[in-house]
Amino acid sequence: MAALSTTLPLTRDSVLQAHKAIQPHVHRTPVVTNQTLSQLASTPRSPHDLEGTRFAGRTPAKPVLRLWFKCENLQRIGAFKVRGAFYALHRLSEEPGWVEGGGKEKGVVTHSSGNHAQALALAARENGIAAHIVMPQISIPAKIAGTKGYGANVIFSGSTSVEREAVTERVIAETGARLVPPYDHPDIMLGQGTLGLELQEQVERSIAEGVNPAGQALRGVYEAAGKKKKNKEQKRGLDAVIAPCGGGGMLSGVALSCEGTGIRVFGAEPSYQGADDAKRGYESGERVPTVSSLTVADGLRTPVGLHPWSVIYERRLVSGMFSVTDEEILQAMRLVYERMKMVVEPSACVPLAVALFDEDFRSLAEREGGEEGWDLGIVFSGGNVAVEALGKLLAGEK
Amino acid sequence: MAALSTTLPLTRDSVLQAHKAIQPHVHRTPVVTNQTLSQLASTPRSPHDLEGTRFAGRTPAKPVLRLWFKCENLQRIGAFKVRGAFYALHRLSEEPGWVEGGGKEKGVVTHSSGNHAQALALAARENGIAAHIVMPQISIPAKIAGTKGYGANVIFSGSTSVEREAVTERVIAETGARLVPPYDHPDIMLGQGTLGLELQEQVERSIAEGVNPAGQALRGVYEAAGKKKKNKEQKRGLDAVIAPCGGGGMLSGVALSCEGTGIRVFGAEPSYQGADDAKRGYESGERVPTVSSLTVADGLRTPVGLHPWSVIYERRLVSGMFSVTDEEILQAMRLVYERMKMVVEPSACVPLAVALFDEDFRSLAEREGGEEGWDLGIVFSGGNVAVEALGKLLAGEK
Repeated sequence: MAALSTTLPLTRDSVLQAHKAIQPHVHRTPVVTNQTLSQLASTPRSPHDLEGTRFAGRTPAKPVLRLWFKCENLQRIGAFKVRGAFYALHRLSEEPGWVEGGGKEKGVVTHSSGNHAQALALAARENGIAAHIVMPQISIPAKIAGTKGYGANVIFSGSTSVEREAVTERVIAETGARLVPPYDHPDIMLGQGTLGLELQEQVERSIAEGVNPAGQALRGVYEAAGKKKKNKEQKRGLDAVIAPCGGGGMLSGVALSCEGTGIRVFGAEPSYQGADDAKRGYESGERVPTVSSLTVADGLRTPVGLHPWSVIYERRLVSGMFSVTDEEILQAMRLVYERMKMVVEPSACVPLAVALFDEDFRSLAEREGGEEGWDLGIVFSGGNVAVEALGKLLAGEK
Repeated sequence: MAALSTTLPLTRDSVLQAHKAIQPHVHRTPVVTNQTLSQLASTPRSPHDLEGTRFAGRTPAKPVLRLWFKCENLQRIGAFKVRGAFYALHRLSEEPGWVEGGGKEKGVVTHSSGNHAQALALAARENGIAAHIVMPQISIPAKIAGTKGYGANVIFSGSTSVEREAVTERVIAETGARLVPPYDHPDIMLGQGTLGLELQEQVERSIAEGVNPAGQALRGVYEAAGKKKKNKEQKRGLDAVIAPCGGGGMLSGVALSCEGTGIRVFGAEPSYQGADDAKRGYESGERVPTVSSLTVADGLRTPVGLHPWSVIYERRLVSGMFSVTDEEILQAMRLVYERMKMVVEPSACVPLAVALFDEDFRSLAEREGGEEGWDLGIVFSGGNVAVEALGKLLAGEK
């Protein structure tokens, strides 16, 4: 990464700057609406549904929720991670002396078995920069092939974080490559936050024009979106956004993209085996630095990073954290396949699971959204799933 | 159905009429592009790929194919079938005496275990017409529940066509309901053909505006689309369309929608166990009236109907029929899930399999498209697949 001392301040304006830099390289992914899921989200659950859950005995909430899905599963490499990777390399290329000192040949390095590996490999290739990616030996062959396919030099390691970091250190020592971490850096946060800007604009335009992004007239539950009362100076658009939280790079970036707009931002995590570290930290006031969970939402098994934490918690740019069970995540995922006909990975379904199944969130939305309800942005973070595993996942098994 | 004597002539203009009638009830589904798949379609296969196939030993064709996918998997009920169903009921409602004679209460009837059942149930409900749907006892529970969910009266039968037709006859005798067949009627053909009109307009607009339907600048392989030489009077748009062919209602409707436009229309079938009846009929000059195949493309197990045949073959509005193996269909399906992040059913993948793997089709496209290549419309007919089966299907197993 470029030196920390040179990063832009963590503000909405800096996200706009990042967007200008990466726009030529990333997709402006579509935003889609779905009548059936919005109706489901706007229907109170039955007391029977709540039996046996952590909400048993409560009066089911009655929120009105119009859902707007930002489809980063349709992003290049199938996930939002390219945004941060392209911005990180843009910043690095601007660092005085880096290119002149042979930076492109020395290259960049990261350790990742997931979407960040492919994102960095692609961004490096398009910028003519060498990329070294440390991957655990046990990574899925398709992911290894994908990363190599973008021309990266793949180096294998053991699978613990200690083993991975040791190999990464060795690569840095041997090659002089710069480390590009997956989330814990301001440049990564600003890059990922660009999806939040697009989402805001896309929803505003849809509501203003009275058509959904596929060009169909807004009807059913969505008709109300154009009729909401607003202050004169406000455009009609999103009331809130909910995004998945793993390391928190994207969630904090989206929060920055909403700063000063009045749009509330929420984070969504899996609760399985303590993967809801950010929620627990948010509630206790202290960041939880380690996580060890095998939640089905495999992109969200990491603890929230220090830089994201400063935005999410210390500056309170995220208004609340919510967590759902793996069963709820898979139930949401099945709805996305059956009703939206979209391929998403489990991690991408966590915010929708919160909107549909978390009575804490639903009560809040009912209270604050009132009769007019909320236009709620939902971030579909990615669509990279091993297709052979889909049958089991969609049958609710892990 | 309305009496045959009252149907509009089978022309493009009649498809336009049908479109006006059904527009308020169906989605104008998106058309999407995909760089990766268009590049793949525009890359000659290696001689090694052809080994062991029916094309072994041939010089691989080198077509240039820009693919434009019409996403009827995102249509209401998840398939194009609602178009024909809504148009059939519109026509029936206009038939002199039908409403006055208690037609709405007597209702409509069909036998189907698939998308037509849900399409008719939905269209009937929205028109306040009773619907009786004869389904084999062994139908997938989700499909039975779906059909009942639209308020239809579901009647069970055995699974052979003789058993199903006998039960249907009984329902007609008992209720006075009108039969709405799944494909073999001019009104159904005109209704389904409306997707072809939309596809033409959507591609023309994309090329004229230089952006794909998601609002992204046309780049990569698509850039050439706007630069093609054309006669003065022609708009830049599709050169050809390829659609799946089961009973042929949709293929013949799409062919009508292209009549006189210069756009060539092709049909795609599975070859497994003789499901390529239309292709065999087209080549021998005689319609094949029965099919018994368990192809994975379960929507295409029916023989082509008499009315569709008159358009497809007798009037030669379809320029050629092509067939692919079940393995090729599943290979195409996997690419759609992995690269496009779209949920489609096997039947919907047959045209793409032809474009990618059928050397006969690819040679033709090379010969006729030349250096400029073809802008090829591909109909994704539906997305209704039992999600539990996806893992196996996408691993290439049936």
